[in-house]
Amino acid sequence: MPENLIPSYTIGIDLGGTNTEFGIVDSQGNILFKDRFPTATPDFESWSDLLSEKLSNAMEGFGLKGKIAGIGIGAPCANTTTGCIEAATDLPWPSPIPLVEILENKLGLPVVIGNDANAAAIGEMIYGSARELQNFIVLTLGTGVGAGIVCDGHLLNGRNGFAGELGHITFDFAADRKCGCGRYGCLQTVASAKGIVETTRRFDFKNPADPDNPDFTAKDVTLAAVHGDETAKRVFDFTGDCLGKALAQYAAFTDPEAIILFGGVANARNLLLNPTIKSFNENALHLYAGKVSINISTLNGADAAILGTAALPYIITK
Amino acid sequence: MPENLIPSYTIGIDLGGTNTEFGIVDSQGNILFKDRFPTATPDFESWSDLLSEKLSNAMEGFGLKGKIAGIGIGAPCANTTTGCIEAATDLPWPSPIPLVEILENKLGLPVVIGNDANAAAIGEMIYGSARELQNFIVLTLGTGVGAGIVCDGHLLNGRNGFAGELGHITFDFAADRKCGCGRYGCLQTVASAKGIVETTRRFDFKNPADPDNPDFTAKDVTLAAVHGDETAKRVFDFTGDCLGKALAQYAAFTDPEAIILFGGVANARNLLLNPTIKSFNENALHLYAGKVSINISTLNGADAAILGTAALPYIITK
Repeated sequence: MPENLIPSYTIGIDLGGTNTEFGIVDSQGNILFKDRFPTATPDFESWSDLLSEKLSNAMEGFGLKGKIAGIGIGAPCANTTTGCIEAATDLPWPSPIPLVEILENKLGLPVVIGNDANAAAIGEMIYGSARELQNFIVLTLGTGVGAGIVCDGHLLNGRNGFAGELGHITFDFAADRKCGCGRYGCLQTVASAKGIVETTRRFDFKNPADPDNPDFTAKDVTLAAVHGDETAKRVFDFTGDCLGKALAQYAAFTDPEAIILFGGVANARNLLLNPTIKSFNENALHLYAGKVSINISTLNGADAAILGTAALPYIITK
Repeated sequence: MPENLIPSYTIGIDLGGTNTEFGIVDSQGNILFKDRFPTATPDFESWSDLLSEKLSNAMEGFGLKGKIAGIGIGAPCANTTTGCIEAATDLPWPSPIPLVEILENKLGLPVVIGNDANAAAIGEMIYGSARELQNFIVLTLGTGVGAGIVCDGHLLNGRNGFAGELGHITFDFAADRKCGCGRYGCLQTVASAKGIVETTRRFDFKNPADPDNPDFTAKDVTLAAVHGDETAKRVFDFTGDCLGKALAQYAAFTDPEAIILFGGVANARNLLLNPTIKSFNENALHLYAGKVSINISTLNGADAAILGTAALPYIITK
C-alpha cells in the first residue's frame, strides 16, 4: 500500500478454535476497541451475524463509519487465493466457508484473509520481539498449533497460503495420538492446549482438578505446575522435550535466528521454555544447536492476534 | 546485478562429496566448456590448485581472460555470510574452509558461494522444469541429500545460508542409521547414494555385484532393478516409501506446487518416483495430498549443477 494511502484505521479479527477476538486499530498500532466471544456459535451464519453486529455498533459508537480502510482476518486453513476456510479441523462448522465474500457483503468493507499463525508472526514483526529480525518462526500454541515463518524478511505464504502448517508435522513421540486431521502423530496432539490436557490425563494427575472433567483446561495444568505440583511440572517437561525435538527439525528448513512461542500454552513460560531449549540444543543439527534464540512472545496474546490481523490489509493485496 | 552490468560469462563450480564439476557459461545458458575431477584430493590445497590450473587453462584456451564477471560455487554447508564451508560432513577435508577467500586470491575473480542444493534449485528455475513456478522444492539426492526451497518466488537462504538442510531432518524409519553429522535417523542415511547401498546390504542382495565390495554403488542397484532384479526393486520401493513420508512433512512448510528430485539417485526415475508419489499422497495432510506434482529433474545432472552455480553471481550479491 503506498505510503500516502495508509489508512487511519483497520479492523483485525482472530478466528480461533475457542474464541473470536477482534478490534479496531489505528495506524500507530493503538487498539481503540476490542471484544471477544466464544467461536462455537450454533452455525457460521450466527457467528457472522454476531460479529457484524458488534463491529457495526463499535464503528458507530467511535464515529468511525467510513474511516476503516479494511479488515484483516486470521483463521486456520485460510486459502488466501479463494478467500475460503478449507477443511479446518479446529472450527465447529463444516468447511469450506467463503469467509471473505460473506463478511464483505455484511460489512461493506474490503476483507483479506490470512493464516492465523501468519497474522501472529506479522504482529511479532511489527510490535513484538521479532522487530528487526529477518529470519524467525512464530509457533502458535493454542487450541491447535500453527506457525508463521519469516525467512529472508518475507512471510512465507506458499501456493495457496498453506505454508507453515507445522502443527501437522508428525513425530513418533505422538504416534499413538490421533489428530483432528485424521492422521496420527501431529505435533498439535501434544503441544496444543488439548494436547496438554491429554498428557495430563495420561500422567495420572492427582490434583483436586480432574483432567477427565470437560471443563478441565491447560490453564489448570499451568496453575498446578506454578504451585509446585510435580505431575503438572512433568507434563511441561514432556511437552517441552517434544517441542524441542520438533523445533530442532524445523530449524533445518529456514535457518532461523529466533523461534517465538505464542498463545495460551506459552503462558506456562519457563515451565515450558526451559525443557524446550534443552531438547532443541540436544537434538538440532550442529549448524543450529546453540545458535537459535527460543523465547516466549512479549506481546499480550489477545492483543497480538488483533494487531497481527489488523496489519494484514497492509501486506496482503487482493 | 543491474541489467546493463550482465556479464558475458560466469563460471559455475559444483563441489560435491564425490566429484567437482565446473564450467564456463555464457549469459544465454550455453556451456562453453566443462570438466570434472574427483573431489577426494589429498588436501584442500591440492584441490584448489588443481581447479585453478584447469580453469586458468580453459579461460586462456577460449580467449576469455578478462571477460569472466564472476564465479559461483555450490558446496555443502556453505555459509554465505562468511564465505566458508562449515563442518561439512560429506567433504574429505577438515572444516571450516575459507573457500571464497582462497579462490578469489588464486583466480583474481569475485567468488560467491551458495548451498549446492540452492544452486540446483536456481538451475531448475532458470533452465528446468521449475520455470514459471513460484513455490517448489528441489531435493538433491546424491552423496548426501540437500534441498533448495523456493517459496513465493524467493529462494530461501536463512540467517547464514543454511536453509533447506532437509537431508538432516530425522525420521523413525531411519532411527537405526547413524548419519555423518553424528545424529541418527537423518533422511540422507536412506535417500542418498550411500543410503541406497546400505539398504541393499540390509536386503541381502543376491546379484553378482556384492554390496559389501567398496566399489559397489547405487548405480549398480539401479542397473539391477532396471534388469528386473526383485531385491533391487524392493530397495527403491523402500526408499520411495521413506522419501514420500519425508516429502509429506516437508510440504507443510512451504505449501509447494511441485517437488523435483535431482541427482544421481533420481536417475532410477520411475523405480523411485512411483513409490514416492504413492507414499506422499498416503501420508500428507489433506491440504497437500494429491495436490503436489512430484517429478524427476528434466535437466542433465552435471549440466544443471554447472548452470545453477554459474547463475549464483546473478542472484547473490556480496
